Amino acid sequence: VLTKRIAVLPGDGIGPEVCTEAIKVLEAVSERFGHQFELDVQLMGACAIDATGDPLPESTLQACFEADAILLGAIGDPKYDNNPAAKVRPEQGLLRLRKSLGLFANIRPVTAYDVLLEHSPLKADRIQGADMLIYRELTGGIYFGEKGRTADGAYDHCTYTREEIVRIAHLAFQSATTRRNKLTLVDKANVLETSRLWREVVQQIAPEYPSVAVDYLFVDNAAMQMILNPKQFDVILTENMFGDIISDEASVIAGSLGLLPSASVGETAAMFEPIHGSYPQAKGKGIANPIATILSVAMMLEHFGMQEEADLVKEAVDYTLDKNVLTPELRADHPFTTEQVGAFIANYV
Amino acid sequence: VLTKRIAVLPGDGIGPEVCTEAIKVLEAVSERFGHQFELDVQLMGACAIDATGDPLPESTLQACFEADAILLGAIGDPKYDNNPAAKVRPEQGLLRLRKSLGLFANIRPVTAYDVLLEHSPLKADRIQGADMLIYRELTGGIYFGEKGRTADGAYDHCTYTREEIVRIAHLAFQSATTRRNKLTLVDKANVLETSRLWREVVQQIAPEYPSVAVDYLFVDNAAMQMILNPKQFDVILTENMFGDIISDEASVIAGSLGLLPSASVGETAAMFEPIHGSYPQAKGKGIANPIATILSVAMMLEHFGMQEEADLVKEAVDYTLDKNVLTPELRADHPFTTEQVGAFIANYV
Ligand SMILES: CC(C)[C@H](C(=O)O)[C@@H](O)C(=O)O
Ligand SMILES: CC(C)[C@H](C(=O)O)[C@@H](O)C(=O)O
Repeated sequence: VLTKRIAVLPGDGIGPEVCTEAIKVLEAVSERFGHQFELDVQLMGACAIDATGDPLPESTLQACFEADAILLGAIGDPKYDNNPAAKVRPEQGLLRLRKSLGLFANIRPVTAYDVLLEHSPLKADRIQGADMLIYRELTGGIYFGEKGRTADGAYDHCTYTREEIVRIAHLAFQSATTRRNKLTLVDKANVLETSRLWREVVQQIAPEYPSVAVDYLFVDNAAMQMILNPKQFDVILTENMFGDIISDEASVIAGSLGLLPSASVGETAAMFEPIHGSYPQAKGKGIANPIATILSVAMMLEHFGMQEEADLVKEAVDYTLDKNVLTPELRADHPFTTEQVGAFIANYV
Repeated sequence: VLTKRIAVLPGDGIGPEVCTEAIKVLEAVSERFGHQFELDVQLMGACAIDATGDPLPESTLQACFEADAILLGAIGDPKYDNNPAAKVRPEQGLLRLRKSLGLFANIRPVTAYDVLLEHSPLKADRIQGADMLIYRELTGGIYFGEKGRTADGAYDHCTYTREEIVRIAHLAFQSATTRRNKLTLVDKANVLETSRLWREVVQQIAPEYPSVAVDYLFVDNAAMQMILNPKQFDVILTENMFGDIISDEASVIAGSLGLLPSASVGETAAMFEPIHGSYPQAKGKGIANPIATILSVAMMLEHFGMQEEADLVKEAVDYTLDKNVLTPELRADHPFTTEQVGAFIANYV
């Protein structure tokens, strides 16, 4: 029996709805296994700007520092989207949170569930059986380099230190040894100096993991291979900007964004969130799929070392897919609501 | 009757083979319409390194400056690929050529030919009818910014001036007015200052093209939309690095790289090349598809103002697709050779 403190940031759009269901599942786990989960719900994103003027208020950051883990719903609101020059934007809160907590590795499993094959934009034979894990560096690169304007232009600096690459590379290699022993580095080493550094570091570390076969792909080629033959990938490792693009590309080939969780981890902190965004058009309609958030909770339980608990949640999700208890994007006839899917899974647990 | 001087850079791998067929077609056009095409064949890429130590020898650059247009096969050789630290690489020749000639706009049509639907990794209903034109900025951004090493790391600077964006934006808008009047800017304006400048400039120019509907997509979302619903795109405009990734992603959904041409244009110079690479595994086997290079010749003819000639070449390609005179990747039973496909098209012309 363990006590864990979880900062919950429901955020914007469908974020609060899917978090509500994930919390139901967390409570079911707590009842079944006797753990104590102390939830501390805080504002972040557009809702935080509306309430306080700041997308990441000090109290939220504080709660995140004090928590054993963070559960994030989603952030973003269309009123900020077509105004890129706006001084305050929801995304700034997320970027600042990642940086402040040192969440340097974003980890995204992409699994082609059989039940989703008909929903994938790819032909079934291309995608069936695909199962990859993407490690995206999250606190370096062009996202966090110096940026600004000059008299007649603008600039963004991309920088990486050796150490920033080393620490995430080890995580990716370690994870490959527990999977199919393949690691693909995605870079642009034929053009970028930072990419050449990534390749160098990975080549240097590789001998420490003799069981892992290492492969190098230029990012443009990776964007093609992801569609042509996604099954070739096991663990993918890449820098921040390329990871943003490639992991989103990977996520749609599986057939539904609504099923894919993610973790962002650092030396001490860890945050879990569904990869779908705030999807404002669906807000309040009861049609949002809570499964990605529930699977994010499963990743959180694993992070806590609660493997049995995590496996049970995943089993519950498999059962739900099996029984076709699904929201409208996956089931046109007699769809279930967000709340019903959450209750079904919590109940199983 | 016109005289045009064309610098031909066959390059590496299958480059020479596909150029040979494209030249056949050019000669057929010359015979039929009485034009004079003066060809000046030069080395570039790995073959130029092997012969001279320089991927872009002075004589090649000179020939390109003196030509009315350049036809490029492909460059690249595996012996340079797994050696990112190599001091001289084939790609450097290409990048230097783009920069020296001021080829600031890379233009790529992506068309989903019906005959290719079965070859597309996407389900037919997603891709059928897709028809887009990508404008990628080619001489700015992180490709050409300052780059180097520090004591413990590496950096690449991404910069854009307003003028670099203005000139390609006008080309893209003009082209949209001759098509379906839609322009999508792909950027990362929620994170990058250069992207915010792109968005600003495009917003400022848009009123000059009142018929064109402008849309803005973050690059991660664009990578998803390209797979989910490629038909939504008409003209896409984007910066160099994002264009590299998104245009390669776009090219595979159409079902064959072997059919897609490209143009890279500047104030005065213009270069035409197939988008497939040097594909060294296929070299000398007679299995390379020459159609992308032949369609690149069609783009060159259009650039020369020879619309009728260009249309005839495209008609010949359509006829070839129709008659199933195709290389093995598109036709498993009784495939035709590179040479046969080229002869068939030249003959039609
Ligand atoms: C919202 C945005 C800043 C963010 C990113 O680009 O990192 C998002 O796309 C993501 O991938 O989490
Ligand atoms: C070879 C490489 C430098 C080049 C690029 O990245 O521009 C290629 O991928 C392309 O798109 O023409």
